Parts: sequence; C-alpha cells; structure tokens
Amino acid sequence: MSGIAQKLAANQKQVAISEFFEKNKHFLGFDSLSRSLITAVKEAVDNALDACEEARILPTINVQVTKIDAKKDIIELTVEDNGPGIPQKSIEKVFGQLLFGSRFHAIRQSRGQQGIGITGVVMYSQLTTGKPTHVKSKIATEATAAVVDIGLDTRKNKATKSNSGREIWEEENGEIKKHGLEVTCRMKAKYQKGRQSVWQYLRMTSIVNPHAEITFTDPEGEIHFWPRVTERLPRKVESIKPHPHGILLGQLQRMLSESKDSRMSVFLRMNFSGVSGRAAKELCAAAEIEVNTKPKSMKPDQMRALLEAFQGEKMFNGKPVKLLNPPTNCLSPIEEMLIKKGLSKTIDSRYATTMTRVPNVSLGNPYQVEVGLIFGGNMAADKPVEVLRFANRVPLMYQQGGCLLTKAIESVDWRQYGLDQPGAKGVPKGPAAILVHLASTNVQFTSEAKEALAENGEVIEEVRKAMLEMGRGLRKHLEKKKKMAKTKEKFELINDILPAIAKKSAEILERPIPNLSGSITKIMSAVISESETAWNKATKMTDVSIKIYNYTARARAYTILATWPEKSGGIMKNNVFGGRKEATGVWAWKLETLQPGENLTITFSLDGLEKGDWTETDVFYRGSQEIIGALKMDEKYLDEIRNQEKIMQELEAKSESDYTESSPNEETTQNEEEAQPEPAVKPPTGQATLFGGEL
Amino acid sequence: MSGIAQKLAANQKQVAISEFFEKNKHFLGFDSLSRSLITAVKEAVDNALDACEEARILPTINVQVTKIDAKKDIIELTVEDNGPGIPQKSIEKVFGQLLFGSRFHAIRQSRGQQGIGITGVVMYSQLTTGKPTHVKSKIATEATAAVVDIGLDTRKNKATKSNSGREIWEEENGEIKKHGLEVTCRMKAKYQKGRQSVWQYLRMTSIVNPHAEITFTDPEGEIHFWPRVTERLPRKVESIKPHPHGILLGQLQRMLSESKDSRMSVFLRMNFSGVSGRAAKELCAAAEIEVNTKPKSMKPDQMRALLEAFQGEKMFNGKPVKLLNPPTNCLSPIEEMLIKKGLSKTIDSRYATTMTRVPNVSLGNPYQVEVGLIFGGNMAADKPVEVLRFANRVPLMYQQGGCLLTKAIESVDWRQYGLDQPGAKGVPKGPAAILVHLASTNVQFTSEAKEALAENGEVIEEVRKAMLEMGRGLRKHLEKKKKMAKTKEKFELINDILPAIAKKSAEILERPIPNLSGSITKIMSAVISESETAWNKATKMTDVSIKIYNYTARARAYTILATWPEKSGGIMKNNVFGGRKEATGVWAWKLETLQPGENLTITFSLDGLEKGDWTETDVFYRGSQEIIGALKMDEKYLDEIRNQEKIMQELEAKSESDYTESSPNEETTQNEEEAQPEPAVKPPTGQATLFGGEL
Repeated sequence: MSGIAQKLAANQKQVAISEFFEKNKHFLGFDSLSRSLITAVKEAVDNALDACEEARILPTINVQVTKIDAKKDIIELTVEDNGPGIPQKSIEKVFGQLLFGSRFHAIRQSRGQQGIGITGVVMYSQLTTGKPTHVKSKIATEATAAVVDIGLDTRKNKATKSNSGREIWEEENGEIKKHGLEVTCRMKAKYQKGRQSVWQYLRMTSIVNPHAEITFTDPEGEIHFWPRVTERLPRKVESIKPHPHGILLGQLQRMLSESKDSRMSVFLRMNFSGVSGRAAKELCAAAEIEVNTKPKSMKPDQMRALLEAFQGEKMFNGKPVKLLNPPTNCLSPIEEMLIKKGLSKTIDSRYATTMTRVPNVSLGNPYQVEVGLIFGGNMAADKPVEVLRFANRVPLMYQQGGCLLTKAIESVDWRQYGLDQPGAKGVPKGPAAILVHLASTNVQFTSEAKEALAENGEVIEEVRKAMLEMGRGLRKHLEKKKKMAKTKEKFELINDILPAIAKKSAEILERPIPNLSGSITKIMSAVISESETAWNKATKMTDVSIKIYNYTARARAYTILATWPEKSGGIMKNNVFGGRKEATGVWAWKLETLQPGENLTITFSLDGLEKGDWTETDVFYRGSQEIIGALKMDEKYLDEIRNQEKIMQELEAKSESDYTESSPNEETTQNEEEAQPEPAVKPPTGQATLFGGEL
Repeated sequence: MSGIAQKLAANQKQVAISEFFEKNKHFLGFDSLSRSLITAVKEAVDNALDACEEARILPTINVQVTKIDAKKDIIELTVEDNGPGIPQKSIEKVFGQLLFGSRFHAIRQSRGQQGIGITGVVMYSQLTTGKPTHVKSKIATEATAAVVDIGLDTRKNKATKSNSGREIWEEENGEIKKHGLEVTCRMKAKYQKGRQSVWQYLRMTSIVNPHAEITFTDPEGEIHFWPRVTERLPRKVESIKPHPHGILLGQLQRMLSESKDSRMSVFLRMNFSGVSGRAAKELCAAAEIEVNTKPKSMKPDQMRALLEAFQGEKMFNGKPVKLLNPPTNCLSPIEEMLIKKGLSKTIDSRYATTMTRVPNVSLGNPYQVEVGLIFGGNMAADKPVEVLRFANRVPLMYQQGGCLLTKAIESVDWRQYGLDQPGAKGVPKGPAAILVHLASTNVQFTSEAKEALAENGEVIEEVRKAMLEMGRGLRKHLEKKKKMAKTKEKFELINDILPAIAKKSAEILERPIPNLSGSITKIMSAVISESETAWNKATKMTDVSIKIYNYTARARAYTILATWPEKSGGIMKNNVFGGRKEATGVWAWKLETLQPGENLTITFSLDGLEKGDWTETDVFYRGSQEIIGALKMDEKYLDEIRNQEKIMQELEAKSESDYTESSPNEETTQNEEEAQPEPAVKPPTGQATLFGGEL
C-alpha cells in the first residue's frame, strides 16, 4: 500500500489540447466517414462566409469534392472563396493551431467562434492520410498569393509548415484574383447523397445566406449552383460588452482584478453594456460601495454585493437598479423576406409565412429567433415535415432529436393548425417545411461539432411562441381559402345562372330583361373582398388592388387595412385613395359609405422590391359586418406591432446614444445622457409582424 | 478594402483550454443548476472509485450535500473517500489544471480519462460562488493530511493555491485516518429528487460497483446507504499497447518519428499489441520494408505501405498477415452474478437475467458488453421500461435518446419477447428494467460531459445481439411459467381428485382402494421435471434438487443437464449421481431408464457462493419425449458456450505468453514463441452463457 499514491501521481502529465481533440475527434464531428466530409465542408464554408461578412464582400464560394481512391475512401476537398484572404504570417496559426482565433472573446453573432473548426479539418486530414493541407491566400494589398502546406504537431498544438512560397493566382477568365482563399485537403471520407450530404448542407446554407453564391462540383463532375438572391450583405455586427445580467461571480472577480480603471463608476460604465452613468452610481449605492473605490482593491464581500445589485437582489431606493438591455446590433437576422426568398428558391410550395421576432435577452446574451413555414406544393403529405434548423446562419444537420429547436417544434399541438400530429407528440406530419433560425451572441451547442442546441428554457419558449404565431397564420390561411372557395362558388352561381334565367324568362315572356342587382344582393347577403398582388414588368413595381363588393341590402362603412413589406424596403406609390399608416407595414383607408350593390377598388403600387418579393397582400377590416376574403382586424395584434415598433425605436436610440464608444473621460459626458428618459428594463417579448403569401 | 485582411488577422490570439471550457461549461455537464450538482458528484465519485481500484482498496465513499443559501441556490458538496490520497505536491495540478492526468494515454478501461472532470468542478464552483475548493488529502506514508484551497486561473490553465497546511485527520471513531481524500466545494446548484438526482446517480453507481460502500447525506439530513455486496475488487486492469487495426496513418507517422528503436522488426513487436515476432517480419515483407530499417528513417510511401499491411490490404504470401487480437486484461467487466446482485439490491423484481459477452474488438479497441433484464415484481406494467445505461461502470443519466445504448434497445422487436412496444419502435413498455454496460478502452462519448455514447456500428450490433439473447431468455421464462402453471393444475387435479374419488368409490363398494398410478400415468401422459434451488444455512451451501417424474406408459431415457455458476466461483459438491461437465457452467447426467410411474431425484450442492447468489437452476434435457419444466437442449447454444470457452482460453493463453513484457533483446526469444500455433485472428463474436433466476 505504501507509496501507491506517489506511484499513481508519478504518471500524471499535461495533455495538449490537440492531443485531446485528436483522440476525441468525434467531438468535432469527425465520427463516420460520411459525416467527416460534411464537417470539413462546413468548417471551410463557415470560415469563408464569416470572413466575407467581416470584410463586407458578397461571397462567391466554390466547393469541389474529388474521389482520389474510391476503394480506400480517400477524398480531396477544395473550398475557394473571394474573401479578404489571410496574411501570410497568420496562415499557420489559423490552420495549424487549435483554439486560435479572433472571435472567442467577442460578444456578437458569428458562425465560427472557438478557433477549432478548420484546424480540426487539417488535423483529421493529416491523421487519416498523412497529408498536410494546402492553403493559397491572396490579400488585396499584395500582388501574389501565399501558398503553404500546413500540418499539425499535435503534441505541441503547433503548425508544421512546408513548401511555403508565393505564386500568381489567375482566375479562370485569366484575370489576377484580387483576394481570396483556397483550401485543399485530402482525407479518409465518404461522399454520399441524400438528407445528410454535402449537397444538402450547401442547399441549406444558401437558404440562410441569400447573399452568397455557391457552386458545388460533385465527384461525378456534376455542377450544382445556388445563385445569389440579394445583393444586400447581412447587417454588420458590432461586438458588445457583457451585460450585468449574464455575469457570474468568477468573471466579475477576474474583470475587477484585471481592471486598470481608477474607480468603480468608470469600471461599471466602461466594461458593461446596459449600464448608464446613473445606473453605475446606483449600483454602487445598492452594493454599498464608494463610487471612488479602485476596482483592483474590491473586497470579496463587495464583489458579492455588487453581483447581487446586478441581479436586483440588492436594491437602490427600494427598487432594483434599472439597467438597459444590451444593444442588439451584435445580431444579424436574415429577415423575413429573405428567408421567404431562400425557402422559395429551394423548396416548391404554395404558401409561405416567415417571422423575425424582435431581439430578446437571456442571461445578458442578446438573441433573436426567426421562423418560416411553407405549405403545399409538391411536398409529401404523409411524412414528417422537413425541419430546417439553423444557428447563426449555419445549417444544423445532425442530432435533430436532441436539439432545443426540434423540442420547441414538438412542444406545439400542430393539429390545431391544420397539420397531422399523432398523439400531439413529435414532429408534425404534412406537406410542409418548418425553418427555425437562432441568432445569438452565445449559441450554446451540445458539443464542439455544433450540431444541436443545448437546453435553455427562455429560448425554447421564444421559439415556441414564434411557432404558435406561425401556426395561427397557417390556420387562417387554410380557413380563408376554404371560405373563399365556398363564396366564389355561390357568387359564380348567382352571377352566371340568375342572369341566364332572367334572360331566358324575358325572351319567353317577350319582356325586357329585369335589373337583378337587388336580387343578387339579397341572395348573396355578404360583403366580399378580392385582392390581387402582381408584378408589373413595365413599371418594375408590384401592383396591388383590393376590391370590395357590398352585396347586402344596407349601406356599409369600413376601415380597410392592408399589409405591405415596409421593413423590407417596400415603398407605397400611386396610392390614390390616400389613407394613413397605422403601424409598421400596415396601411389603412377609411370607407365612409359603400351603397348596396356598389363596389370600390383600392389600388397602390410598391416600389423598391424585386419580382417575387411580394406576392400576396393580407387585407383586414374594421366594421360590424363581416367581409368575406378579409380578416377582422385583431386590435391586440396591431398593439403588438406598435409595441414592437416602440421596442425597436428604443433599441435604435440606445445604439446611437449609449453604445457609441465612450471617451476615456466619459464622466463629463454623463449629464446629457442622464437627461434622457430610460427605456423599460423588461426584455421585449412581443410578437413580430407576420406576413404570408401564396407563392 | 485594402488592409482588411491584416486588420482581421491582428485580432487573433490563442485561447487557453480553461477559457474554452469556462465559456462552454455546458460541454462538461454544467448547464442547468440541478445537472451541475449531479455532474460535480459524478466527477468526485468517479475519481474516488478509480483511485481505489488502482490502489486495490475496497472503496467507502461519503457524499454530503448541504444547502448553504436556498434562496440563492448555493450548495456545498463534500465527497470523502478512503482511497490512496494524493501527494501534497500533486494536488494543485489534479484539481486546478485542465487536461492534466495519468490516464489519457493509457489504453485500458477507466472511469476518468481526460483530466477534465474534477478541475471542471473547481472551475464551476469558483465561477458561480467565487469560492475555491477545499481539498484534504492523506497518503499512507505520511502522518498528517495535507489541506489546501484550490482555485483556477482560467487565463493560464493554472491552479491558484491558498491556506495550504497540514492537519491531523481523525475519523469519527477517533482513529487517525490511514489514507483518503476529501473534497469540499461550494457552487450555484439545485438539489432535486427523482429520476435525475444525486440519489439516483449514487443508486445506479452502486449497482455497477457492488464492491463499493456508499453513504449519502441529503440536504434534509436524511442518510441513504448502499452497502457493499461483494468483497471482491474488480479485476485489475492492465494498460495495453495500441493494436495495428486501430492505427491511423498520422499516428503511425508520429510513433515512427518518435521511436528510438533500432529496427522495424523491434519497433513493431514492442509498440503494438497483437504483433508477434513472426507477424512483425511478415508485415515488413508485405510492406516491402527491410526488417532492419530504422523506424525514424521510414519514408512516407513505406509508412503508407505498412499501414496497408496492417489492414490486410498488402498481403504476405497472398494472405493478410495474421495478427493476434489485443489482450483483454485491459477490461474489467462487472460479471453476471454481480450485476444480478446489484440489480436485486435496488430493484424489486421476480425474474432476473444477466449476460456478460466475451470481449470483442472494434478498430483495435477491446470492448465488452454486459446486459441485464429484470421483470415482474412491483414495476409498473404500462410505462416504458427503465433503461439503466453504464459506460466503464459509470451511470449515464442524461441524453438517453441520443445514446447508442438506447438505440440498440430500440432496434429490437420486443413484442416477440413478451414486452409491449407500440409500433415495434422505441423503448418497450412493461414491468421490466434493462441494464446495459459497455466496458471499453476507448468509450466514445458524444461530448465531454460523458452522458451518451456516439454511434458505432459494431458496438450497437454487439449490444443488440445481447438484447436478443436476453429477450429469448425472457420469452422462455414466460412460456415455461405458463406451461408449468397448466401442468401443475392438471397434476393437482389428478393427484388430489382421482384418489379421492377412488377412495370414496371403494368405501361405497366396500372394496379395497385400487392402485391408481397406471391411470394417472395414462391421464397425465407426460414427463415432468421439478427443480429446487435453496440456500442451506447449516452447510453454507446452495442445495439443488432436480426431480424427474415419468408419467407416461413407456420407459424413458434422457440426458439431464443443469446450469451452475462455474464462472462465478460455484463449486459442485455432493453430486452423488456423478455425470460429467459438458461445458463451462453446464453439467450432464445420463439417465439410462426411467420406468413408467417412476421418479428420480438428482441432488448436488454448490460451494463457494453466498446466500442469494444462485436462486434458480436451469434444467435441460436430451431425449425424444418432451420434459415439462425443462428445456430441450439447444446444441447450437452449447456449441456457442464451448466456442466461447475456446476463445477465452486463447485470450488467456495470449495474456500469458505474448503480452508479458518482452525483454529488450527480444529478437532472441522469438523461436520458442513461433513454435506455438497462433489462435485465429477473427474477433470473437460468440454468445456468452445466459442464466436467469426467479428472485
């Protein structure tokens, strides 16, 4: 027995992170041969998209998979982009060193973050074929491209370099490439088709990155092309500071001990988002700390007290200290219309609805949920709906069952909304596809392979709400279609047959044909709306007409409302009826009187859109008599939209005032700011506008 | 545009592994507050069990959870063991440095391996409460215990130490503690009851660690105790060398470049398991490498050729080079009887069957599957069966759906075996619990939190086979019970009522009571077996009696076979009938003639077992007439057992010859060894013996 403890201890040693991930390469997504290839494509394409976005370049990406030795499953993968390139001296670290990167500490939405992905690809290639990864990189300020072969010394987590040099990078058209990166690696892997394939990964990537052009050459030499559907780059995301609501004691301790600030009031203002000068003072007061205390000299008890003040457990004047929400310019949602475009591009359907909810905050981390639902078309009616999961614009292709996004979908009783769902459990069945995208500064995956999102009660609830709202939209669409079909039948009957009978009768009786409008009105006894939304080739605008028929015996008065894609840049033109804007994307016209038998047409055009952007206008009414073909305005829904507007305005106001970089002597600038009223601290949970359309 | 590449590159920096895991603490199992506590208990208890096992100490573990501040969810956890302790100078690295440990490179079965677990607990505690972890450690060779508070500098992945000192460690009985470790940490966490709780974790741990004594004091002060049910320590596991079948090119390259061996034949013999001197020469020949080649000077093409020789793609004399399987003394299965004991201790049931399959090899990694099934008793009949998953004797409590072991259970059509399973999909329903344990030198988890096993076609097939075999056992048990119940009814009817009628009739007729045995035989027309297995207090042995009744009109001849727990140490005594061993754990007696109306009893006793170890004996027969209450011997089943015996003998022979440490001048010892015939290279896939019992 004696000495056993020493003996056991003697064998202990430090393991390099690269040895760890070499042994656990399945954590990184290198488990099966087919998944390994998808993982490699994913890491390379993610990097290309991230780099282009940061450099504000519209990405053009070429992916090529070649079978080198089919029997031994050796595959060569080349991914080329038109991004900014990587300076020669940085190449080895980016590709040959794990946990090396620029995005780990930045709080903002990005695809890659850990500095693991592409180095994992280099490592896996080397491990399975012994081959280094060939990198060619050209940056705009240099005439030639740097080329080098990169391997990985896993014992030390360091790159190994060989065949380093420079060469002229000519494009196919003979021109010199301005900037870009090309990565070529050779690995043991299998190329597959189907639901989990490189093709599917790129197709899904193109849905949520409509600004990217992607070309894929498969091992048979077939070329697959996903065009760019918008020239608009995703919003530029800014890094933000951590928010007090998401801080843990250990982090606060470290921030304080590393702080060079002279006093706590400065420290709080400068290192956190959401803390105004006034809030900083109130936090200090609540925690019973002098504002002049030097951060470095804070005592453990003071730190704990400050954390409690952050969390509202220690109060100021009997109330929790009000903090602003973190700014949301760190997020870059895809936005409703682009999701719709992306979905329509790849899946043929008849109805599409999408929704981008306003940003929300979970434990100090801003996040935003976007969802889309398409229905009908050629999709199979007896299979589970296709679930398209995305996080920070990256498709998630594995572990669907263990992912928060799937669980949110499964938590909805879809039978209420027109989809089949045996036992009200699991993914619903029907001719539909559901898209869900989480944009967040801190996406919590279940593992390094980034294929499933970990549990989070707040996020799941937010996704669920979006699903419910979309479900309601689908139900309304299906109900409206049914009702319209019925009314149309009746209408056609009356309009065609009644006059025919009248004419025939008149002929027989040799009397004049009677005026039937009164009779038709009596029989129909309804107000009907018909709307049309059509692309006008000549004017390059989208023309909308809304026709209201009064087939009742009384004069009617209404307010007619219609949606238009204001947030996506649609501009109202030729709106001869006037009216006024009721809320973001909702216009209203007052109809004083519409006499029995009369009809009236509201017309306008939408500028600033492309063909296919806007294909159906939702029409609402305010008034006592139902209008078939339009929906009664739900005032709560309108309030929600207005509430969202307010939240967005507040968010924008904050971005402009609070979150501009404060000058070092910011104490002097406090007064102006404190004069501003502070927006509510309650995180926004409201609904975003919902719009659907027949495709 | 110009300069953007440089600007982006300028922000890149190296991230410490501790920063990585602090940010991704959910990878380590610290996601929700309730799971964080279970994770902490798990890491501490796993370490205690591993250390005791290595030091060959029967573990006694005390776990205490105390609520420090219920409102703020602050909990203190103390785990104390009687393990070997940790030398003072090693404490800081073990607790305060990630990826530091002794087991990372060792190829053998162990609970912990990565050197992440307990440091993760220290990190999480510090992060959430700012408190360091208090460690008290006493090793046998020192008089006092070392005490120290450990924190973690996450920027550097280094421990921070404070309050270091030494103290006398007195146990409750006033004696000085000989050796052991006590870890106390304070963290933000929630104590919960139910299916995912500390209690459940410890209960499951005790099932698969029957040699451990575990005491748990919950926050209400209630004490839960799981006694030690065996004094036998798990088999000592030996580290093995990697097997050529599991080597990737990158690993081979590194092994060669780091080798100090003088020539390839030595390198191959010394650094791999399964490579005999002859095989080393053949591998060199197949790869067209001179045996004298210096490993360090191997060319890339030669390496590739050698790898192909490893994989049988390059041949020697037209055949793949035969390699031995890796030794399996690196594994430590729980073994059938102990699983049964563990299950019986914690779950009340009527029928239990367990099975330990022979070790198998997947890509050069030895692994072994053990399964158990209990049925009946108080378990709910209308709920899914309880699934108890384990890997290397550690309970898996989360992500059941995403785990290979669950998928293997779900792949079986349980309706064939007497359990309900709607749609033949998913976990079956019924009053049962299914246990499955994977022991492996390389357990592939889906993430660092070690809660679910990643996909592996070979392992899933092996588990599935074990499930099918168990299912067949369950079906036989249920069928036998049904048949026996029917026969018993008939038997009782005949034996009670017929003589009563005869007696009454004789009385009325005033005639002597007739001999009915002929009539009974005619009516029964069956051979019946009844067996009894009972603990004999006086002799401390298990007495078994097998009675055979011939209720047919003809004389019968049989071979009667019975199972006994030979592998678990059961020794046959007082076997007056003689007979002979047919296979491991199967004894046979020849019955030349059994006349009509006659019966016969075979008796024997089993020594070397404890009370409760063996409660039911399976009886089989060979013969043309069915014996109700016994099973017709399936000769294929017997062949399987014999095949397994052979495999085990080969495995043992290998352990003794090939895997004893070779002397440095091993080239000279080759001749003897080469004279031995080589066992087959085909990995063993046979069935293990199956035994069940009514509890």
